[in-house]
Amino acid sequence: MLDGLSGSVIIAQTPFDDRGSVDLASIDTLTDFYLKHGANGFVVLGVSGEGGKLTPQEALDVSSRFIARATGKPVIVGVSNSSSAQLKMLAGEAMDRGASGVMIAPPSGIRTEEELFGYFSAVFEMIGDIPVVLQDFPGSTGVWMSVPSMLRLIETFRQIKVVKEEDIPSLEKISKLRAGQGRRVTIMTGNNGLYLPYEMARGIDGPMAGFSHPEMLSSVYRLHTEGQIEAAHDLFGHYLPLLDYEAQGFWGVAARKEVMRRRGAIRHATMRRPGPSLSGQHLAEIDLLLRRLDRALTASA
Amino acid sequence: MLDGLSGSVIIAQTPFDDRGSVDLASIDTLTDFYLKHGANGFVVLGVSGEGGKLTPQEALDVSSRFIARATGKPVIVGVSNSSSAQLKMLAGEAMDRGASGVMIAPPSGIRTEEELFGYFSAVFEMIGDIPVVLQDFPGSTGVWMSVPSMLRLIETFRQIKVVKEEDIPSLEKISKLRAGQGRRVTIMTGNNGLYLPYEMARGIDGPMAGFSHPEMLSSVYRLHTEGQIEAAHDLFGHYLPLLDYEAQGFWGVAARKEVMRRRGAIRHATMRRPGPSLSGQHLAEIDLLLRRLDRALTASA
Amino acid sequence: MLDGLSGSVIIAQTPFDDRGSVDLASIDTLTDFYLKHGANGFVVLGVSGEGGKLTPQEALDVSSRFIARATGKPVIVGVSNSSSAQLKMLAGEAMDRGASGVMIAPPSGIRTEEELFGYFSAVFEMIGDIPVVLQDFPGSTGVWMSVPSMLRLIETFRQIKVVKEEDIPSLEKISKLRAGQGRRVTIMTGNNGLYLPYEMARGIDGPMAGFSHPEMLSSVYRLHTEGQIEAAHDLFGHYLPLLDYEAQGFWGVAARKEVMRRRGAIRHATMRRPGPSLSGQHLAEIDLLLRRLDRALTASA
Amino acid sequence: MLDGLSGSVIIAQTPFDDRGSVDLASIDTLTDFYLKHGANGFVVLGVSGEGGKLTPQEALDVSSRFIARATGKPVIVGVSNSSSAQLKMLAGEAMDRGASGVMIAPPSGIRTEEELFGYFSAVFEMIGDIPVVLQDFPGSTGVWMSVPSMLRLIETFRQIKVVKEEDIPSLEKISKLRAGQGRRVTIMTGNNGLYLPYEMARGIDGPMAGFSHPEMLSSVYRLHTEGQIEAAHDLFGHYLPLLDYEAQGFWGVAARKEVMRRRGAIRHATMRRPGPSLSGQHLAEIDLLLRRLDRALTASA
Repeated sequence: MLDGLSGSVIIAQTPFDDRGSVDLASIDTLTDFYLKHGANGFVVLGVSGEGGKLTPQEALDVSSRFIARATGKPVIVGVSNSSSAQLKMLAGEAMDRGASGVMIAPPSGIRTEEELFGYFSAVFEMIGDIPVVLQDFPGSTGVWMSVPSMLRLIETFRQIKVVKEEDIPSLEKISKLRAGQGRRVTIMTGNNGLYLPYEMARGIDGPMAGFSHPEMLSSVYRLHTEGQIEAAHDLFGHYLPLLDYEAQGFWGVAARKEVMRRRGAIRHATMRRPGPSLSGQHLAEIDLLLRRLDRALTASA
Repeated sequence: MLDGLSGSVIIAQTPFDDRGSVDLASIDTLTDFYLKHGANGFVVLGVSGEGGKLTPQEALDVSSRFIARATGKPVIVGVSNSSSAQLKMLAGEAMDRGASGVMIAPPSGIRTEEELFGYFSAVFEMIGDIPVVLQDFPGSTGVWMSVPSMLRLIETFRQIKVVKEEDIPSLEKISKLRAGQGRRVTIMTGNNGLYLPYEMARGIDGPMAGFSHPEMLSSVYRLHTEGQIEAAHDLFGHYLPLLDYEAQGFWGVAARKEVMRRRGAIRHATMRRPGPSLSGQHLAEIDLLLRRLDRALTASA
Repeated sequence: MLDGLSGSVIIAQTPFDDRGSVDLASIDTLTDFYLKHGANGFVVLGVSGEGGKLTPQEALDVSSRFIARATGKPVIVGVSNSSSAQLKMLAGEAMDRGASGVMIAPPSGIRTEEELFGYFSAVFEMIGDIPVVLQDFPGSTGVWMSVPSMLRLIETFRQIKVVKEEDIPSLEKISKLRAGQGRRVTIMTGNNGLYLPYEMARGIDGPMAGFSHPEMLSSVYRLHTEGQIEAAHDLFGHYLPLLDYEAQGFWGVAARKEVMRRRGAIRHATMRRPGPSLSGQHLAEIDLLLRRLDRALTASA
Repeated sequence: MLDGLSGSVIIAQTPFDDRGSVDLASIDTLTDFYLKHGANGFVVLGVSGEGGKLTPQEALDVSSRFIARATGKPVIVGVSNSSSAQLKMLAGEAMDRGASGVMIAPPSGIRTEEELFGYFSAVFEMIGDIPVVLQDFPGSTGVWMSVPSMLRLIETFRQIKVVKEEDIPSLEKISKLRAGQGRRVTIMTGNNGLYLPYEMARGIDGPMAGFSHPEMLSSVYRLHTEGQIEAAHDLFGHYLPLLDYEAQGFWGVAARKEVMRRRGAIRHATMRRPGPSLSGQHLAEIDLLLRRLDRALTASA
């Protein structure tokens, strides 16, 4: 189901209530919110989706709820885990519940490309024929993959349908991945979409990112594919201050959840502990950013 | 049950069959083997026990089997996890099954001592009143804790009953921890027991280590507490070549399991994938080491 | 000379000719360019100034040239070095040549705050009474300093006159440093100025950053200190796409040098090897960014 | 001059006086000590030789002194440096002073094997036709090189004459390097010689290590090459407790210098700051180790 994936695929937040429990009901409103703003698919339980903070049971409950509400749009489940056995269990269960594929990043501690290849050999043998998004996110995993290594993984393991490229900088790496001979896979990019218009020009098939205003991701994608390059940059520019603000690691995710709460997508902005909580100054900065965004969008309308 | 813990506490291996499935039956023979060779307690599912490779269900099954066979000796369960929620779940379930406590190391990614304190504040609030072994193993976790930080954790969180000190080098750190004012906790040391006689002289309460010949750990402990320092060093010296050999990271663990298989403690030497598998040269090196150990022990008898 | 430092302090590039030799003549035009665009001071031989790629003799030649041209504005010399003896030598020589102070970041390999304190005790004893900028740049050094540790360093070592705060995210850390009791030091911020208007509101004394358009740094600083907050954000917003583009690590620095070459500040955009070199796609992206910047500035004039 | 290098090559300490200044006179006695105990060559200014703590001028003075005293035995100079320009300068000056070659480890921050190759391409082009020891020491550099990558470097860069292999564990890597097709280079091993007899059996050409009793290194090498395998292990075993003790990072180096001071090789055991200084307990441990070593050697004579 991931063959030929393109468009705006959303890295979904996981909503928690104010005591830190998973807020399943908010998943419904959140999914509706994403769909309304142009989502072509979802990745749940990624890094900024706080997937690493859940128990396996919670992970499956969250996945099921998103899948049920996604109205047939593909839902990919993040299953990266330091335990390959747990990864295998989560991947199998997610597929049984209707996921379109799983996302896997290599675990911390892999140091050479030989080890990298050994790791994925073991994992792909364990999970069998499941569609996979290969996540290249060295800033989070501490595992750096060169383009030749990634192309070798793609050639060897047919389960890889999509690469989520979020090394920084991403641009040259995207160009080289796209130029690589061999099997074509979907390339999408994360990094909160910070370099989205340039990445589109470099050949990606769309963003795979989270943002409090997902309409920006889908609109920039659409404008770019329509050849309206300047309009894409214009729109992107309006959102850039907020986009940068949400790119401050887990503090940025906290801000994103607060904005999404204000927009009615979720009931609580809570991040599960351990995690940041916003100060009054943060809230004032968000006020300013939203006021300025509103003004810019109004002026350009 | 961990108050005043002392003696030789074994970091237990997890046995797998030749297909990589948990071999529960071998846990019985393994536990008997450890007890016969002087074990005063157990830590299961530590790093060298391959705890990080299991699913939660497997982890609980393994723990229960060890607890049932340990004839009342304390069993501590390693529950370190990048997900605090999963850590909490595992800790609660382990205690329900009769564990005497849990072992926790801080997760990768903690960078300052302020973050360290914040992490343990959250975790100790989550797990409540459970006896805890604080594991200081920076070579594995990438988290370095200074002595003042560790003493602060001990003073603040009364659940900490034991420190497993396996920074390298350990000696000065043990002396400083022991000299620290405040509440006395048990200090045990890991690092495969490589510096055990010196650590005993520095004030530890015993080894908390794994070795294919656990009788060395219990005997060095006993001789040292009896004041037979030279005899402790003599005995230690006989085992040192093998001890060094088993200290080669996960390759050393593979060698340890092979030796324990030969001694009848477990049925298979298998390590779960991804992990090393021994070559013919490794097996020849083990042959040589065991032959020389046997000769040295015979000569000294 | 660093007491009470404020304003826009520029992290200066080091110009190389097309063979990678230091281009001393371009230092003159570059310094003039910075001064013309509002520089209140300079830091030479920082990370993005490629200071780590020079020989000691080159470092001193570059420093002298900047000092001679800076028309009395303070020049701070980056002297961080894995060898404390080399650091001491460089610091002494820089001061002899007329530097106003030196910038020091802790070397890779420092793991606890106790080690951090020990390192700076040794270094400050070695260099004596020289004004120091303490650089907090964990993304480059791998050394994370908590706010309590930084405040302790400031209280203990009176040579620290300025903190260059470029942890990400910086905002909460700036607020906490500013709220810290004790001796007041100048706080400036790096990170290419990506969060400059928010950081101004959090209490910094100005940017200490590099950018191809230093007039943005000085103007945002000026507008903010005059209370023209919205105007500061407006101006900042025009430059933000280019600012983000230049924030792509050493690839961003390569882009910056190319833009500065086009603006006549330096003769060559060369970065010393090993380092990136821009592709045709990069140059096209820069064309687009400069064209759009020009249009935005014209429209807002 | 490094073609076909074999035997016991010593990683030399750098002597300092009690104020931390380089003690050039002690280099003479130290060199004589090493030669008397079987040294076939020297590496000066390696990691445990505190090479990273010197100024360039000190580094050259130390190198020259060793070269003058080495009676024609090869002296290799460690020139690893985060600055390639400084590396080039040091390498050229060392060769001018009569060095037989230089030792280079990749600098921290190299993350993929593509970057590794790019780094050495730049460096080898810069330094020209100088004999090089490629040091594989990931525990210190943070750069992991797989065997295929190392073989590719060897095939591409003919200046590489020797590999110093000190990844841990080293055994399988040595076997694979030795089995590699292509140009034969010398393989020597470091890690303080902790696995020397096994490494000899795996095909190394000798130790390249430091130890307070260099006669062990040369004797184990000789016995092994004569086919006296058991005698090599017997001798090795006598020294193993001290060898392990000296393997405690820079604390171990401090112990080594203290033992060498007692043996008359150097006048002071001082390590340059920042570095460890031994406590009374350390000195008592050294007393015990030396007394037991003396007894074991006497008993076996």
